[in-house]
Amino acid sequence: MISESMEALGKKRSTIREIFEYGNARAKVVGRENIYDFSLGNPNVPAPQAVTDEINRLVREEAPEVLHGYTSAPGLDYVREAMAESLNSRFGTHFVKDNFYMTVGAAASICITLKAIACPGDEFVVPAPFFPEYRCWIEHTVNCKCVVVPASPADFQIDFDAFEKSLNTHTKAVIINSPNNPSGAVYSEDTVKKLATILTDASRKFGHPIYLISDEPYREIVYDGLKLPFVTKYYNNTFVCYSFSKSLSMPGERIGYVLVPDEMEDSKDVFAAVCGAGRILGFVNAPSMFQRVAARCATLTSDISIYERNRDILYNGLINAGFSCVKPRGAFYMFPRALEADEKAFCERAKKYDLLLVPGGDFGCPGHVRISYCVKTDMIERSIPVFEKLAKEYR
Amino acid sequence: MISESMEALGKKRSTIREIFEYGNARAKVVGRENIYDFSLGNPNVPAPQAVTDEINRLVREEAPEVLHGYTSAPGLDYVREAMAESLNSRFGTHFVKDNFYMTVGAAASICITLKAIACPGDEFVVPAPFFPEYRCWIEHTVNCKCVVVPASPADFQIDFDAFEKSLNTHTKAVIINSPNNPSGAVYSEDTVKKLATILTDASRKFGHPIYLISDEPYREIVYDGLKLPFVTKYYNNTFVCYSFSKSLSMPGERIGYVLVPDEMEDSKDVFAAVCGAGRILGFVNAPSMFQRVAARCATLTSDISIYERNRDILYNGLINAGFSCVKPRGAFYMFPRALEADEKAFCERAKKYDLLLVPGGDFGCPGHVRISYCVKTDMIERSIPVFEKLAKEYR
Repeated sequence: MISESMEALGKKRSTIREIFEYGNARAKVVGRENIYDFSLGNPNVPAPQAVTDEINRLVREEAPEVLHGYTSAPGLDYVREAMAESLNSRFGTHFVKDNFYMTVGAAASICITLKAIACPGDEFVVPAPFFPEYRCWIEHTVNCKCVVVPASPADFQIDFDAFEKSLNTHTKAVIINSPNNPSGAVYSEDTVKKLATILTDASRKFGHPIYLISDEPYREIVYDGLKLPFVTKYYNNTFVCYSFSKSLSMPGERIGYVLVPDEMEDSKDVFAAVCGAGRILGFVNAPSMFQRVAARCATLTSDISIYERNRDILYNGLINAGFSCVKPRGAFYMFPRALEADEKAFCERAKKYDLLLVPGGDFGCPGHVRISYCVKTDMIERSIPVFEKLAKEYR
Repeated sequence: MISESMEALGKKRSTIREIFEYGNARAKVVGRENIYDFSLGNPNVPAPQAVTDEINRLVREEAPEVLHGYTSAPGLDYVREAMAESLNSRFGTHFVKDNFYMTVGAAASICITLKAIACPGDEFVVPAPFFPEYRCWIEHTVNCKCVVVPASPADFQIDFDAFEKSLNTHTKAVIINSPNNPSGAVYSEDTVKKLATILTDASRKFGHPIYLISDEPYREIVYDGLKLPFVTKYYNNTFVCYSFSKSLSMPGERIGYVLVPDEMEDSKDVFAAVCGAGRILGFVNAPSMFQRVAARCATLTSDISIYERNRDILYNGLINAGFSCVKPRGAFYMFPRALEADEKAFCERAKKYDLLLVPGGDFGCPGHVRISYCVKTDMIERSIPVFEKLAKEYR
């Protein structure tokens, strides 16, 4: 007499959480220093000092009934202006406040976007590897079909032949995530251009816009001085779903936005639908104090160089140990090939060494394992000989 | 090619917001001191000092990557324990942390509860007067039927004859809101007992539990030393949807909970469905810092005596001016009968005196108008002669 699908979703333990909790239990037996837990994507680098400073300033200077009061549903005007200015200054865009709807993080941004555009019978295309919650939201938040495009494991860009075949008259949108969780790949400008060309042609062919939903919580976490192609500049019908969770290391505070560019077809109507969807999903306004913190800190980040150093140590260590892995250019995940075909069996074997890795199956990419390196550098250094021991078993 | 219903919901201006914005424009012409804006339910009494103190303590003492980090989906254990203790100490209940799922406010709590229990074809019963968003959530969040029970305007308790007739085999749940927005009525123990008896009988008759969803954001805002009957003690299959928005004057921060008591039928399964629904609506965890603030301040409130004083001045003023009104015992709304049958025409006439009132139609109770008195006491005092002038027109 309750919703069976909600009950099942609530009961199905997340694989990642299970591994994390196994690690906590195991740490009590063998000591925390002997556990190499690479399961969670919880930033370990603290938020920039400016976050703390702005919280202190706000409680000191603002009247509490204003600071903690309702904001308008899309967010405070000056906050949305700060979002626009931050992107304009960094990416040469021309956004204004009315392009932004502030949300309680990227999960909310994506659910709101899906709810705003989904009609019965729609299909949503997701190139693998992908964040597993996409499937849940497509199937259960809007009751549509999730169409997975197999991964291109040589570089984790997009297999465009497979991608083109996945599009049809029912396709409503494509969800991309670059820098990518779990592969750490960053889509090149060529990839984004080709994606735009294919979607433009397909929209014409099928007689309706196919939207691009660009999920960008890792946008600022890129390495090697890489410049990220900002997707709305290549394809007009793009929603940007953003969160400050990773860039400012405050995932618990739930603050992000949906960006609907003016260049989108019927952008005012679409923005209205985003407002309607926010209301219907039970979001009244994004948290008022952290809206203000995000405005003050919109162009700042945590110390990304720590993640880059972690990447280098881990990548070199894995390659030396004989692993095969696409070098991540962003985010804080590495996605090497497992050393046997069944990556779940491989993860079980790694567990014997107290190396906690996440199987790639839920990400739509079996045969690989995800390693989250938003952890202490010291633990990564100590883990390298352990990865070597594990690899030796397979020689 | 987008969702028409979401677009329509985003475009439909809230009547309350329209009146509020009219007031702001009008204030520029005649001066803010000459506008009597009773439209919004935004608390004007500041949060207790303990809220500010706890924020200061948290940023001073907690590591930022922990303070702002993810919490488990239902919320931090110690926070949920504090929720249980706060209720147990005040209401003699026996809750434990696992009865609580922390949310981003009451709107989220209700949407999550609806999503957890709704099945296709379900009906949800709402006694008038009711908060207008209930209808939107029932119709659009879970695509079910909203069945309105006409108000009992003599006391704004429940018209039980009409209520019993509204129940049938499709009834999944009843949503109540006491203290009530817009009437300020507080359900008596007799009302809650009778409600429980009818729902118990109907559940037996129709062969499935009919849930009670108790929306309680105004629970602590009661006057005249009134003791509120805590609903789960009278009816086992009760969800409590709570928010700290009003009690702690922090509606912008979005913090509340869903409470699933152990006494509920299959309570563990229902709680799992609540977790599933939270996930599917895009809520990852309730904001991490304000979870902690709520835990510290769970038994505190803003200075409620200010609202009580406002109520007394306004109520006496209206009665003396010839209005007919049920005396509110809680919340910060008054719901007098309009002085003509068409309450919209009455509100338009009041507007000529710069008295901004909200018509009762959207609350399921035409012929009445809502007056929000969470405003400066001084404005209420100055408004009384204006209400008198307005009333004179009708003599």
